[in-house]
Amino acid sequence: MKSILDYETVSLIDEDDALEIIDQTLLPGKIEIIRLHTAKEIWDAIYLLQVRGAPAIGVSAGMGLYLLMKHSEAGSYEEFMKELQEKSDYLNSSRPTAVNLSWALKRMKAHVEDVYKAAQGKGFEEVRALLIKEMCDECQRIKEEDIDVCRRIGEYGLTLIKDGDGLLTHCNAGQLCACKYGTATAPMYLAHEKGYKIKVYCDETRPLLQGARLTAFELHSAGIDTTLLCDNMSASLMKTGAINAVFTGCDRVAANGDAANKIGTSLLALAAKRYGVPFYICAPKSTIDINTRTGADINIEQRKPEEVTEMWYKERMAPEGVKVYNPAFDVTDNELIAGIVTEYGILHAPYDKAIKDLFKNTK
Amino acid sequence: MKSILDYETVSLIDEDDALEIIDQTLLPGKIEIIRLHTAKEIWDAIYLLQVRGAPAIGVSAGMGLYLLMKHSEAGSYEEFMKELQEKSDYLNSSRPTAVNLSWALKRMKAHVEDVYKAAQGKGFEEVRALLIKEMCDECQRIKEEDIDVCRRIGEYGLTLIKDGDGLLTHCNAGQLCACKYGTATAPMYLAHEKGYKIKVYCDETRPLLQGARLTAFELHSAGIDTTLLCDNMSASLMKTGAINAVFTGCDRVAANGDAANKIGTSLLALAAKRYGVPFYICAPKSTIDINTRTGADINIEQRKPEEVTEMWYKERMAPEGVKVYNPAFDVTDNELIAGIVTEYGILHAPYDKAIKDLFKNTK
Repeated sequence: MKSILDYETVSLIDEDDALEIIDQTLLPGKIEIIRLHTAKEIWDAIYLLQVRGAPAIGVSAGMGLYLLMKHSEAGSYEEFMKELQEKSDYLNSSRPTAVNLSWALKRMKAHVEDVYKAAQGKGFEEVRALLIKEMCDECQRIKEEDIDVCRRIGEYGLTLIKDGDGLLTHCNAGQLCACKYGTATAPMYLAHEKGYKIKVYCDETRPLLQGARLTAFELHSAGIDTTLLCDNMSASLMKTGAINAVFTGCDRVAANGDAANKIGTSLLALAAKRYGVPFYICAPKSTIDINTRTGADINIEQRKPEEVTEMWYKERMAPEGVKVYNPAFDVTDNELIAGIVTEYGILHAPYDKAIKDLFKNTK
Repeated sequence: MKSILDYETVSLIDEDDALEIIDQTLLPGKIEIIRLHTAKEIWDAIYLLQVRGAPAIGVSAGMGLYLLMKHSEAGSYEEFMKELQEKSDYLNSSRPTAVNLSWALKRMKAHVEDVYKAAQGKGFEEVRALLIKEMCDECQRIKEEDIDVCRRIGEYGLTLIKDGDGLLTHCNAGQLCACKYGTATAPMYLAHEKGYKIKVYCDETRPLLQGARLTAFELHSAGIDTTLLCDNMSASLMKTGAINAVFTGCDRVAANGDAANKIGTSLLALAAKRYGVPFYICAPKSTIDINTRTGADINIEQRKPEEVTEMWYKERMAPEGVKVYNPAFDVTDNELIAGIVTEYGILHAPYDKAIKDLFKNTK
């Protein structure tokens, strides 16, 4: 089996006018690399979760928008921008609540506007070629920046790991949700590259099993010693002394360091506290929302009952009519977090001050 | 839908020479009551988990042994006992590690020996009829005692519940593993009968999903407001204030009050501690093993990886080759337990003393 690190989650194949992705809906049974050419194919891939994870979706959207504009025959800037807006709106409708999707599309548009302003006075044929070339560069930059952020998170995280450590993670904050390295997995991949013999334990992460299907898959494929467990087994495992640190990703960090992540993260953090295991959140600075005061201000999405009662199963495994509690995320209180690993370094308590300083000292 | 309380998990239908059970392998999709007549049918039902749960297995074995001896034509006590031993060994082989199975079979045999001793001097035809009648009475007594123990646990547990309470449980320590009421569910059924409007939340209990399939089924069928959640959602739920108390069953209580129960119980107890929710273990005195000093002395069975990686699923949901951590039980430290509800009352810390007193003051 090839390692996940031999692939990139999303790539631009410019000579083939294609976006190349790993079809994640077929994992872990089958690694299939597919190329997307048309607007509909790209839209479907995002909608059907063939590509998923905030950074990977953002990169896909940026590259997709470039590909859809690459052969534009617009005769004027206005026509070009009208066409760009239409394609952008279409791609954005594939997962309307994914923040990175609209962020990347807006960034592409803003870059086109900037380039156009700087190119005043030239004929439109020449300008159009320039805009398209710049779109190509910009979507590649989005990807390179993502890889750079993940690698830097990995390097800071690596300082928290020793040879021989047992590490635990939850859900998938891995390469499969980004372009390379991932966030929570970045320290693990770098430790593995360095020759450390680490053992990584993956919570299966009910109800959608991203830990079993994606994280266990990608780490195992990379040759890391990988063990799967059910979400209710973490306390038992930590009690044995097998775990030296926990690393998880994060969906949003509040200004006080409270961190919203996949449901079950806060329970894991409680177990870590009990057994003296440091619990680290890996979060790009873009995940920190200084306008969210505390975790209590984060709205938690309730998802559909069928995810718990029937999905994945041969037959319904809960009685008809029973109610279901199925929140997508929970909030881990800042006092349970030993550190927040960002691309600018590791933040420690008191987090309100550390986060303020981060925003003051970085652009 | 009829309520679970309209059924008994195991019943002797003497006039039909049959053991009547709910086929639990068909739950929660279908309630099917089946009658078992032959040794092979009874053996299969226990082996295939059509009937499961320590007390229910014990009662099934006792009743099964009676039915298999009922038409014995043994010409002497020695022949009778030889036949009884053979049938007993056969039934016992259906689940060799189930303590209640061998316990019930031994109790039946010991009772036959006692009755025979007291009946010296009579002709064997008369004695044989007496032994068979006494076997019938004894297996019914095993069942009645189980129901009595569960009801008394329920009555003590009921004192811990207020009208309107939200209660959380894990795995199935319900009527389906006993004959009536169950252990952890007994206070819930009695509260419901009393007209309390309780809301019960059931952990689905990976990997075998007893909470989703059995507990949610039986409580919902009884008309109790029942909500299912994944095991990783308990901390999130308790944080909302929805839970007033946790009740779980127990496989073994050590002399110091440490309690081994289904994997995930100790994690739940940690969440309860964090959010100030009292965590109660419901345990018949027979579950307390004064020869086990602490939880550390309890050997935890590791079960097969396939339970986590493939069971219940349409397709394999973890990569081939990944290792699996799959312990059947975990140990909840005594300091996390607010009370142990037995048929003789509620034990409180310090548990070593409370347990010593229980064994001194009850027979």
